[in-house]
Amino acid sequence: MADDTIRSADVIEADHARVLHSWSAQGSLPPFEIAGGSGCELWDHDGNRYLDFSSQLVFTNMGHGHPRIVEAIAQQAKQLATIAPATANATRAKAARLVLERAPQGFEKVFFSNGGADANENAMRMARLVTGRDKIVSRYRSYHGNTGASIVATGDWRRSSNEYARGHVHVFGPYLYRSEFWATSVEEECERALHHLERVIQAEGPETVAGILLETIPGTAGVMMPPPGYLPGVREIADRYGIVLILDEVMAGFGRTGEWLSLDAYDVRPDLVTFAKGVNSGYVPVGGVMVDGRIAHEFDERVFPGGLTYSGHPLAAAAIVGNLEAMAEEKAVENAATIGRDHLGPALEALADKHDAVGEVRGTGVFWAVELVADRDTREPLAAAKIGAIKKACQERGVVVFPSANRIHMVPPCIVTPDEVARAVDALDAALAAL
Amino acid sequence: MADDTIRSADVIEADHARVLHSWSAQGSLPPFEIAGGSGCELWDHDGNRYLDFSSQLVFTNMGHGHPRIVEAIAQQAKQLATIAPATANATRAKAARLVLERAPQGFEKVFFSNGGADANENAMRMARLVTGRDKIVSRYRSYHGNTGASIVATGDWRRSSNEYARGHVHVFGPYLYRSEFWATSVEEECERALHHLERVIQAEGPETVAGILLETIPGTAGVMMPPPGYLPGVREIADRYGIVLILDEVMAGFGRTGEWLSLDAYDVRPDLVTFAKGVNSGYVPVGGVMVDGRIAHEFDERVFPGGLTYSGHPLAAAAIVGNLEAMAEEKAVENAATIGRDHLGPALEALADKHDAVGEVRGTGVFWAVELVADRDTREPLAAAKIGAIKKACQERGVVVFPSANRIHMVPPCIVTPDEVARAVDALDAALAAL
Ligand SMILES: Cc1ncc(COP(=O)(O)O)c(C=O)c1O
Ligand SMILES: Cc1ncc(COP(=O)(O)O)c(C=O)c1O
Repeated sequence: MADDTIRSADVIEADHARVLHSWSAQGSLPPFEIAGGSGCELWDHDGNRYLDFSSQLVFTNMGHGHPRIVEAIAQQAKQLATIAPATANATRAKAARLVLERAPQGFEKVFFSNGGADANENAMRMARLVTGRDKIVSRYRSYHGNTGASIVATGDWRRSSNEYARGHVHVFGPYLYRSEFWATSVEEECERALHHLERVIQAEGPETVAGILLETIPGTAGVMMPPPGYLPGVREIADRYGIVLILDEVMAGFGRTGEWLSLDAYDVRPDLVTFAKGVNSGYVPVGGVMVDGRIAHEFDERVFPGGLTYSGHPLAAAAIVGNLEAMAEEKAVENAATIGRDHLGPALEALADKHDAVGEVRGTGVFWAVELVADRDTREPLAAAKIGAIKKACQERGVVVFPSANRIHMVPPCIVTPDEVARAVDALDAALAAL
Repeated sequence: MADDTIRSADVIEADHARVLHSWSAQGSLPPFEIAGGSGCELWDHDGNRYLDFSSQLVFTNMGHGHPRIVEAIAQQAKQLATIAPATANATRAKAARLVLERAPQGFEKVFFSNGGADANENAMRMARLVTGRDKIVSRYRSYHGNTGASIVATGDWRRSSNEYARGHVHVFGPYLYRSEFWATSVEEECERALHHLERVIQAEGPETVAGILLETIPGTAGVMMPPPGYLPGVREIADRYGIVLILDEVMAGFGRTGEWLSLDAYDVRPDLVTFAKGVNSGYVPVGGVMVDGRIAHEFDERVFPGGLTYSGHPLAAAAIVGNLEAMAEEKAVENAATIGRDHLGPALEALADKHDAVGEVRGTGVFWAVELVADRDTREPLAAAKIGAIKKACQERGVVVFPSANRIHMVPPCIVTPDEVARAVDALDAALAAL
């Protein structure tokens, strides 16, 4: 698709002219252009190379151009790229099996989608159908996807079988650094966050609440590690009121935290788990819901009124198979854990000692947020322009980071090396020094 | 991913055990299994071969295993499978250019999504943002996708910037065979359908209506060809009240009707056009919105608050490029037109003369519905069990058709040959005779 006579500026211009980009105003040009990649490296048509500490939108968990995933895609494309969801397919069945090997005990089925948003759509749908209730409780500091209208625009029975789905209620979650509960210790933050959640459910009317939807570790919102007791406490509340617990592992799952699923580090068993991104490193759009047997069997005789044209797409399934097999064989999850514990975590903590602008460093595995402040005492967030400047300074040093609000997220592929960590942290160090 | 020692029954069993399938109860097994395909043919691991007159879910417009699309995918996978939406990419820019070459005059940009539902999501979002209004008017007999909740479950600013999006109103559209307007001629049906649409808009309050969302030709709902004056009339109403007109070309677009876009056969210029399926024959999940320049530039300075991780995915873009180039070079759109006019249309009309169960045959290109009735006078729909039996009888004769409500849709790839049409219509003929 590209050749050596192409210049980066032309690609940027062509893309900008005709592509309407997400979550942004269209007036300014895309920051750069990418022609190819391998592992943690990316390059443009002009030969500039970048170290990718963003994993794009935190999803290329096995890095760029992984030969095994590339080969799985090429093979499957040749054999059978696509098929309708209703027909059976061997590659899809295998992908489902490999995904379920990483699910909590007792999880029996996978519903496939195209990405994270529609994974959450279908998990909420299941929660609502099995409870006969409407409301979904989620956190203010969260992101669950961008969809919210197509089924209600639909006219046929597929709308009317989904019209119960209106209620959404938001709560605050544990985030001690900016506590909403006047807490001064992790334990207090945890206990109060649980109290707040239960009070909201009681006030809404527990008989109206279908599901609690939480990112196990909120990602884009700031990599807020849940206190040890929080998720077990949420499980207890869910059980007390007959509410379905959905954990969103779209960003945190499949290696990012140094675990197969980030929930593995917590003593909690959800009813539904949503995934996307890392499951196939985003090589082919896909997502899905892992479904506990009890919920799966609710739909043995009853129609499940949800679906997408590309649900269980063989090409996406092939990329899942290639990705998960490579992840296991190359011990990428173990590598992510080691990197977090011995390299990236300590190096970022060292930056915190060195730069006043660093308010807090949080994370695990290859999933880290550096929270930046204008003032350490008031914890006033660093201004957006300065975050932009840091991002740019890193990029000039050949490192792509993931900025979000007043934070720089350091989220490389799971296969990152200690050397690459050192280079990236040096770039961030220099960028902070130049502030 | 498959080898010769695999048996179909095992694949069906493995898929059924672990995959939760869409729009169905899970008690019964998938109807069959597909191992590979080429052109209009499919085969399973046991060596059974099928002629695909469903195009799966009406999307494999260039057929299965098209070498050019397969090659484009393999190449791009090797070079760069995936990238974040914000960065520029040459393949994506090229895909946008090729899509816009088929758009109405004055369309300037493409917003890419993962499929049809999120294409419609983002078109509705644009309509709402540029009008500052809330309601979307669509037809009862329509399908626009399965999503409807993720952005309201989201907690951060991406929710609050989308919270205006609640109102949906449904109207009846022109469908003379089952008129909702007591009409007895095409002209009367058209005029009354327009009157009804305008009255609903007036009664809802035009200042609350952001968009009218219509499938140019409703697909799954029954391939109801709009009377010649209908879409121009809708355009007039939209203009009268400052409403954005969105045409959903997800199923009808990119060759299916024997036109590049099905709207090309009508004298209408929409503001937004949504697409998916045929744009790359579904080889890699993708969809999008073609955006009129006037609307595109509304977002030059203002943030467009919509997006998906895989928006503008290079691998999907490569499949668009391969598919659209092949479609043009092989004159697949012209072939679809010829097939409809000279082969499939006449052959289905002949079935109507022969079998009392055929109430009406509608369509164009490779987009046909055979409406089946228990009684030609009352037009009572044929019972679901009988439709199931017809589908099964066709399959036993090696032909896969697309059943929907009381209809059999005959919707092969655009590259279908007259011979294949004859074989498929023979199978349907025999299935109807066996009723
Ligand atoms: C936790 C979480 N859930 C859901 C999503 C939505 O995924 P997608 O963009 O694939 O729809 C995201 C995307 O960033 C996410 O981080
Ligand atoms: C007209 C139309 N719009 C939208 C959609 C939804 O597309 P998807 O299933 O890719 O989300 C469909 C799917 O059949 C469709 O036919």
